[in-house]
Parts: sequence; structure tokens; C-alpha cells
Amino acid sequence: MPDVTRPIIGVVGGGQLAWMMAPAAARLGLPLVLLADPADPAAVLVRDVIDGRPDADGLRRLAHRCDVLTVEHELVDLDTMQALEDEGHAVRPSASTLRVANDKIRQRELLADHGVPVAPWTVASDLAGVETFAGEHGWPLVLKRPRGGYDGRGVWIVDDRHEATAVLEEVAGDVLLVEPKLPIELELAVLVARRPDGAVAVYPAVETVQEGAMCREVVLPAPVGEGLATEAEALAERVAVAIGSVGMLAVELFVVDGRILLNELAARPHNAGHVTIEGSVTSQFENHLRAVADLPLGSTRRRVPAAVMVNVVGAEGDPRDRLAAALDVDDVAVHLYGKSARAGRKLGHVTATGDELEPARARARLAAARLVGGPAS
Amino acid sequence: MPDVTRPIIGVVGGGQLAWMMAPAAARLGLPLVLLADPADPAAVLVRDVIDGRPDADGLRRLAHRCDVLTVEHELVDLDTMQALEDEGHAVRPSASTLRVANDKIRQRELLADHGVPVAPWTVASDLAGVETFAGEHGWPLVLKRPRGGYDGRGVWIVDDRHEATAVLEEVAGDVLLVEPKLPIELELAVLVARRPDGAVAVYPAVETVQEGAMCREVVLPAPVGEGLATEAEALAERVAVAIGSVGMLAVELFVVDGRILLNELAARPHNAGHVTIEGSVTSQFENHLRAVADLPLGSTRRRVPAAVMVNVVGAEGDPRDRLAAALDVDDVAVHLYGKSARAGRKLGHVTATGDELEPARARARLAAARLVGGPAS
Repeated sequence: MPDVTRPIIGVVGGGQLAWMMAPAAARLGLPLVLLADPADPAAVLVRDVIDGRPDADGLRRLAHRCDVLTVEHELVDLDTMQALEDEGHAVRPSASTLRVANDKIRQRELLADHGVPVAPWTVASDLAGVETFAGEHGWPLVLKRPRGGYDGRGVWIVDDRHEATAVLEEVAGDVLLVEPKLPIELELAVLVARRPDGAVAVYPAVETVQEGAMCREVVLPAPVGEGLATEAEALAERVAVAIGSVGMLAVELFVVDGRILLNELAARPHNAGHVTIEGSVTSQFENHLRAVADLPLGSTRRRVPAAVMVNVVGAEGDPRDRLAAALDVDDVAVHLYGKSARAGRKLGHVTATGDELEPARARARLAAARLVGGPAS
Repeated sequence: MPDVTRPIIGVVGGGQLAWMMAPAAARLGLPLVLLADPADPAAVLVRDVIDGRPDADGLRRLAHRCDVLTVEHELVDLDTMQALEDEGHAVRPSASTLRVANDKIRQRELLADHGVPVAPWTVASDLAGVETFAGEHGWPLVLKRPRGGYDGRGVWIVDDRHEATAVLEEVAGDVLLVEPKLPIELELAVLVARRPDGAVAVYPAVETVQEGAMCREVVLPAPVGEGLATEAEALAERVAVAIGSVGMLAVELFVVDGRILLNELAARPHNAGHVTIEGSVTSQFENHLRAVADLPLGSTRRRVPAAVMVNVVGAEGDPRDRLAAALDVDDVAVHLYGKSARAGRKLGHVTATGDELEPARARARLAAARLVGGPAS
């Protein structure tokens, strides 16, 4: 990156993550330019939008206009990111970090060498491979596409060979990651901000509550013992170092039989970190920008005893039409992304903070329920 | 206002107050349109900018494009605001509120009838009037333009008839407000959000620390006894009701001999309320938007034990070039407005929060000093 005090940050993507980066960038006086659809949410808050896709052409246009490239989603042409890096562009996180973070098989291969605990796994592209693994670990199994899945897409739980066959037919010969279906006690996530020089700032572990394989709630701090939280945070830092992340890294973890196992990674701000906007001294969005701009990282300390985020997941109609009812709930911060409503789509989130977890959770849930047209009281 | 669930909010002005409204509006899904110079700070975060001035033409163009009109500064053509209101446009605050809030003489006339304590005062446009008042109250006196002053502009302290004559010549026959120079112990401000139906939310009193007649620091909560704070908050609410404010109202107060006196008003978000972004459950910017959009008001409770805001006032060079040094201070939130640097101009602010006031104040001061090129340690 050229030696500039005010780098122009190019963001691949214009969804809610870029939308939440925008105010943080404005506050710090860091100019943003997006590679996005001008109808994307973030375009409401960012004037400088390159209308294009994250392919070679789009990425080169973006690189030409910024001092440092970063991403808000995974669907980016990594060969071009690598080429830009080789040509001297600052790509943060790097193409090699993205290759690992975006590929559940590479993750396991690499991180096993760094002593990161993972569930038993194999790779299969045919029934024989799946059945061999089932012979060792039993049914049901979880089959996952190594790349491109999110919110439960690209993940299947199969109870037997018939269901496995159906999935294998659906993916038509692609390689799948195969794991046993684990008796998960709870899921944690740890967010790590990391600068190009390796300086890190680790957020306290949060609990992520899933429903239908989509994150529904996030609780800060995770309601687990200090030992488990500390272990999760140390593990996440180790992962960040191992994959050389720059910017935010979200490390999603399972707790099984009191032990922590790696689930997956995202080398960008993440749904598990929205709670940091109100709950932490520095939000994940600000720390992502500070990290990729090579500025000192902000404190990851909690600003409040407890914070709970609840996603607003699309149902009937537009949650913006129900704003008054949601704001009638005391002490909630409503974030509506400006996306068109569609069943199962994340349209926003609500965060409540307080001295105690459960009242905050109740308030956040109530406001979120009102936004999706749930019970009015 | 038409009965819409998502009113388009038209803001007169594009300075830092509109710039801080923009993220709050985006979060709530409330569309903003500004009447501003496209080079103004807020235009970085708002796509929809009407390039114009707050005169009859500009205001009518804005009114045509929005459901509710509001302001972020006082320099607005009130006759046109009144005419728009008469024609059925939602103008919040109303033209009559703005007339009182923007005029220190009208304020005193109106509020005296509502039992709001003010310092002794008179109106003068010649030396005879000033000297008569000096005969009763002694020198020095404070002469103020009734309208348009800010950050010490339009305010003069005069020690004798010669200095008074110089000011009278400068204002060339305009009417001035005349007050004794009071032995001010400290200055307070109370922010009040008020809806069209009269529902109010009052923020805890803050201390505003002035230097050279410009606000330099704001301390939340004000370090005064509970009795004085409660009195200030009750007085501010009474003022909001008396002038029929809608949106945010900032009530600035003097403490003299342990008694509270009205200083001045601003019927908009105010520098004294920037500390609410990090310090309060709901920021003044969000509550301004909620109020003018006629949505339920958010909690004004403190989210932290103490918060201190320090203004970044222009000196040499651009504070954005010194961002790294400022961010190296732990636990500070830096807000840089993107304004070109000029001596004496407010270019940004820094807020620090914490369990105790003095450490937070020290951190905020250090980061602000670094941004203006002060001592590096």
C-alpha cells in the first residue's frame, strides 16, 4: 500500500456489512469506495459506488480507485485478488487468507497442523466415501459444501445412505466435507481484529444461537465459564495467526462434551459481531477498517455488562412499516438494512444492552418479533 | 404530515449535525434528503442532496421532496418555514419555536412568563441604554446579538463606555441584548426530545466547559449535586413545553451562586449532546429523528457511568493526518467531520467513556490534543 495517512478503502460488496462499515469509516475520515450494485443497502451511505461484480473486471476497477482492498463477502474472484496482490496492491485480508477462510476443507487441513481441534472429518464425492465414514462414526452425518455456503445453504444433515445419495446427486460430483452430527451443547464465536504487522485485538467470546442453521441471537459475553471463554479466545487468536488474517476474522466454534471444536471461519466482519456496535468500546466494523488501514486497533472491551442481538429475519411485509411498534420497546437499538423483504432473509437486527442478560434478551426478542409482524405485546 | 409509516425527512443543512443524523436515519430505515452544499460533510453519508440555500426557493424545493422538514442550523428563512407550515407541511420544530429559540430577546420575554429564571437583562441600541443598565448593575457588561451568534461570535464583554461604544458602532444601530457579566460557577446543558403530541424524553444534565466562548468539553453526567441536576432537567422540560419544541431542544444554563439561570436555546441537536452517541442508550441524533418522524422516543439513560466529549478545534493542518496517533489512545471514539481545517473551527470531537470521570476526560483530551497537533504523549 502506498504510504498514505488516509487510505481510500475499497470494499468488495454493498450488503449490510458494508452498510455498517460506512458510518465507522465516515467518523474516522477514511474514504470508502464500494464494488457493488447501486441498489445495495450500503449505497445509501456511500456515495462512491463502482457498479460492478466481484470478477476480474470489477476487482481491477476497484483496485484502480483505492489504496487498500477489502471484502464484505466471500463471493470474490480469488485469482484476481492474488494477481492484484502480486502486482503490489494492498489486499486485506490476503488472497491466501481468503482461500483458507472460504474453504472448509483447506481450513481443516491447515489448522490441524496448528493444533486447532476439529471434529472428525473426511472428504467425499461419492457414496462409498460417505459410507466408509459412516461405518466409523455412525449416522447421522453432516455433509457440507466446502465453499459458498451460508445461513444453512450448502449444509445437509443426512440420516442414512438414501438421504446421502440425494445430496450427492444434488451436488453432482462435487467434493463434500463429511462430519458426524455432533451433540452440540452450544455454539460460540470469537472475533479477532488483526493488523498487517500481526498486532491483534480479540473480542470476548459470544454465544451464537442458531435456528434452522441460521444465526438468530448473539449473546455478549457468552454465558460460559471463564475457562471455556479464555480457551475459545486463545484458539481464535491462534487461528488468526495461522491463516495470517488482516482485518476482522470470525471464528465459529462448537462446544461438544465441554470441549471446543472449530466450526468455520469468515475473514470479514460477521453477524456474530453486530452486538459489538452497542456492546463494545469499539465495534467490529471500526476495528476492521482500522486493521485494513493499518491504524491502531480499538479496545474490544465490553461497554456494558450484557448485550444481546436478535436478527430480524424476513417474513411477510416490510419491517420498516412496523418501526413504531418496535421502538415502543424500551432500550433497544434497531438496525434495518434497507433490503427488500423476503422469507428467510436477514433484514436487520435489534440489540439490547443492560446490567443483566435475560431482561436484555427479552427486550431484543420483543422488538425483533414486532418488526417481523409477531405478537404486539 | 401525510400519514406515512416511513416519512422522508428533509433536513435544512449539511454540517456535522446532519452528518451524525445520517447513520441514525439509515439504521431506522428513514430516508433523508438534505438542503445543503454538495461539498458539506453530511453529503458523504447522504445521497439525496438538494444543492441550495435555506432561502424561500431552497426550502420550497426541500418541502416538495420530503414528508417532514427539520433543521440542523438556525440560518433559515423563517417566513418561508411559516408559510410552508400554513400550507400544511410538517415543519418540526415549528417556525414559531424557531423564532423563539433563535432570538435571545424573544426567549427572555416569553420564558419570564413561564417562571424560567434569567439574569437581569435589557435591550439597547445606543450608549444611553447601555449606560442606564450599567448604572443599575455595574460594569463589565455582556452585549449579545439576539440572533445568529455562535461559538462566541456576536457576543462581547465590555468593561466601560468606550468598549461599549465600539461594539455599538460595529453593529451599526442593531438592537443588542445587555446583561451583567455574571460570576458563572459552571455551565450546564439539558437536551430534551419532544414529539408532536408533547411526549418528552429528557437527558441527564451535562456540564459544558467553555473556553474563549466556545464549547470545549462536555461531561456526562454533570458533576453537580442531584438537586441541581434535577432542577436543571425540570427547567429544560418546562422550556420545551413553553416554546412547543418538536425534535431536540438544547437548553444551555448558567450556575451562578448555586442558582440556575437560562443562557440560551437551540432547537436542534447540539454540541452538548454529541456525548450521547456513546454515553446514552439513544443518541440525540436518533431521538431527534424519532421525534420529528413522530415515532416513540428512545431511552435517555446513561449506558456508562461517565462519558466525556472533547471538541477537536482547528489549528494547523488536517486532523485526519494525525489519526493514527489519536487512535493509539485507548478507549476513545474519534469523530472527524470531514471539514477543511481552519483555525478555531470545530473539525471533530472525541468521546471517552468509563467507570470514572477523570480517566475518561484525560483520554479524550489526549486524543483530541493529538488530532490538533498537540503534545504526542
